[in-house]
Amino acid sequence: MKHVNLPRADSAHERCLRNHAIGWTIDRMATHALLVTVEDRPGMLFKVTEAVAAGAGDIRYVDLLHWQQETEIFFECELPGAVEPILERLQGVAGVRSAITAPSMSTIYGKRIIIMGGGAQVGQVALGAITEADRHNIRGEHISIDTIPLVGEQPLADAVRAAARLPRVKALVLAGSLMGGEIEIAVREVRAQGLLVVSLNMAGSVPEAADLVVTDPVQAGVMTVMAVADTAKFTVERLKRRIF
Amino acid sequence: MKHVNLPRADSAHERCLRNHAIGWTIDRMATHALLVTVEDRPGMLFKVTEAVAAGAGDIRYVDLLHWQQETEIFFECELPGAVEPILERLQGVAGVRSAITAPSMSTIYGKRIIIMGGGAQVGQVALGAITEADRHNIRGEHISIDTIPLVGEQPLADAVRAAARLPRVKALVLAGSLMGGEIEIAVREVRAQGLLVVSLNMAGSVPEAADLVVTDPVQAGVMTVMAVADTAKFTVERLKRRIF
Repeated sequence: MKHVNLPRADSAHERCLRNHAIGWTIDRMATHALLVTVEDRPGMLFKVTEAVAAGAGDIRYVDLLHWQQETEIFFECELPGAVEPILERLQGVAGVRSAITAPSMSTIYGKRIIIMGGGAQVGQVALGAITEADRHNIRGEHISIDTIPLVGEQPLADAVRAAARLPRVKALVLAGSLMGGEIEIAVREVRAQGLLVVSLNMAGSVPEAADLVVTDPVQAGVMTVMAVADTAKFTVERLKRRIF
Repeated sequence: MKHVNLPRADSAHERCLRNHAIGWTIDRMATHALLVTVEDRPGMLFKVTEAVAAGAGDIRYVDLLHWQQETEIFFECELPGAVEPILERLQGVAGVRSAITAPSMSTIYGKRIIIMGGGAQVGQVALGAITEADRHNIRGEHISIDTIPLVGEQPLADAVRAAARLPRVKALVLAGSLMGGEIEIAVREVRAQGLLVVSLNMAGSVPEAADLVVTDPVQAGVMTVMAVADTAKFTVERLKRRIF
């Protein structure tokens, strides 16, 4: 983690250290991604998670996909042993049509940066961030750039708070011309939860609340990716200034 | 849905029609978003979904967020009655620290379009898509533009397949100079699952497999948003040609 706030403890290593600290047995824990196809009816997520819990699995990520005739439950879990007994257990659950292993979402889409605000600025920040993420992904990183053009104080404040509830999000960029009030409060909340927040240099109180303020939108996108990439030599807390 | 493949049946209306068809009681079903904070230990998702199932709730979306000291389970579910009894039930589960209502993720981040491929092209498609999404979001739509710059046949094929397992995704744009082989097979698979696939005009067999082929990347981004937006008058199956 490259910033000064509470880091999000979602890396396997950090979890490992924490689990040791509280005395859990974590020997030979490995992460597996599973895709379980079930009938689309209430209670299936309960039945599937019950089978995983019965096999001592610890679910770390989950997505529900609703298709016309069935639902897919995709999840990643840490298992104390082999995955086959869990697959067999799942296949025995009433309403489960199939249970197979799948590639992990974290391996494919990796860390996420979310850019939100006015369309003109979001587009320019995205341009910088996508080009820079490309350079790091070629070297083995996995960084996605997600964006939403939004207008209005309350929708933006809601989107800032919700970003902290989306999986794998590491940083937010607020790209606009005027942001303050409730958005500033939301920015301070998600920073306290461990997200890095970058703001364009704009009117309103959001720049004061952000970790980093960058005037050029392309530079803002590039710097945010550098702050998040393990392949980059860029650490926000080592910077001599906060405004560029 | 604006394209000719199997539509994804994840809208409340489509689900409602389907539930009627198979004879479920769906009177007074309403969707609620809940945020449940729990201790970070195995089995908590099982305990929480058990409580929701006991209250006849149907979970339609779920995210797990791991913080340093605790885990947040965010979910959206359809309930036959008021949300308060479910909140009380959840607060009584061992390991649950709090259970509150929250704004729905579908309301904030809405439909997702995913752009993947080479950084240069992904950036230009994103520019068109973000600017066009801005115009629709101002009129009440909720469209996010998510991107990942990626290189290589297998990583791209994996990302195409995984996109169909991410929540709220409506369309993919393949933005590059050469894509074929395993990527083409993945494109045909996700189209069969109901995703709209737009391809830039490029070398390789992916353009043949896509719903729509667009030469200009900005236009590709704009057209994809128009195809997904309910606020746009643009229907892929009504087009007289497939290549622009």
